[in-house]
Amino acid sequence: MSTNRTDVRRLAQRGSNDRNAAYEILDTAMVAHVGIVDEGFPVVIPMLCARDGDHVLLHGSSRSRLMRSLAEGCNACVTVTLIDSLVLARSAFNHSANYRSLVVFGHARALRKLEEKRAALEKFVDHLVPGRSADARPGNAGELKATLIVAMPIDEFSVKARRGPPEDKKTDMGLQVWAGEMPVFTKFGSPIPAPELPSDADVPDYIKAMIPDR
Amino acid sequence: MSTNRTDVRRLAQRGSNDRNAAYEILDTAMVAHVGIVDEGFPVVIPMLCARDGDHVLLHGSSRSRLMRSLAEGCNACVTVTLIDSLVLARSAFNHSANYRSLVVFGHARALRKLEEKRAALEKFVDHLVPGRSADARPGNAGELKATLIVAMPIDEFSVKARRGPPEDKKTDMGLQVWAGEMPVFTKFGSPIPAPELPSDADVPDYIKAMIPDR
Repeated sequence: MSTNRTDVRRLAQRGSNDRNAAYEILDTAMVAHVGIVDEGFPVVIPMLCARDGDHVLLHGSSRSRLMRSLAEGCNACVTVTLIDSLVLARSAFNHSANYRSLVVFGHARALRKLEEKRAALEKFVDHLVPGRSADARPGNAGELKATLIVAMPIDEFSVKARRGPPEDKKTDMGLQVWAGEMPVFTKFGSPIPAPELPSDADVPDYIKAMIPDR
Repeated sequence: MSTNRTDVRRLAQRGSNDRNAAYEILDTAMVAHVGIVDEGFPVVIPMLCARDGDHVLLHGSSRSRLMRSLAEGCNACVTVTLIDSLVLARSAFNHSANYRSLVVFGHARALRKLEEKRAALEKFVDHLVPGRSADARPGNAGELKATLIVAMPIDEFSVKARRGPPEDKKTDMGLQVWAGEMPVFTKFGSPIPAPELPSDADVPDYIKAMIPDR
């Protein structure tokens, strides 16, 4: 292996350590990609994420081996990526994407107290659908015991981003090739009611607020 | 660590090994999250991805330590995730997401021949913007030498997915809480021309085809 962790840390330090940028990425993203090491092999699993102050929250079943490893404080990497646009250069080589990404290294700790876990579960729900936790039935003791929730400190982290137009060589600028950016958006479609829902059930305002005007 | 790779493999085998499902995920996604191990620590980095038959293609600068490690055939995990909808249950606990994810374990090999690298670069460009490679200037020898492109075999892999409505307990079904799915879409916005582009430059048809009707 040509890399070593020190180098990666050094590399990480070349990225921004802008804490507000890190928080903005986390608060926008739905999914984190969580890496652990399993007998020398990397394992990367997608997980819904949320933020509680200066910690990333992750959760899963108490039966999940990945969650149990995280709860035991194994070496972990949590990466969150947002794609903002595709960058179309005149040359194939200079094609790129505008993005923002956050990489957090460290060790998570498990939340143990039921009240702490209930509050964290509400953070997940409200992160995905703001306002939802006031509507849904809160987790009960049995459910909270069946859930592992871990908090990873946003301590050793790196924010990286690319912004702006394509960067072509001067010698390519005269080519008759369209160049620019294709913005990428994540949008919600019309809500699909659960099959058993009464046909006159109103879609709550906090859900309507998520749907773009047409 | 409570996990070991054998267990992860066993777990992986519980997922689907549907090759066509794996290809569909790869062909839809823009980004893969690539994990390697660096002195016992997991490192997870987002990378643009493409597919060439039964291989995932990844690329980056020849100066990137992560790319160099991949090119040397280090233990690697490539994970691709698509979020299809948020799943809103009557209970906070049963909230979820409908998703499709692909996890590939293995070792990549570097593409060495210029022709092979040029073809791979075109696959990246056409994967993001179908038809683009016929328009953009192809990579030249210098550019291709400055790029590391690796191919990871889709051999040891696992596809996981959740589909369908929320699953609430019977005792929750009578709650006056809206339940259902919020579909999630990735959409392109109107193209933003590069600053130096002539104001009369036409947006090519293959780009117009990516923009949804309004």
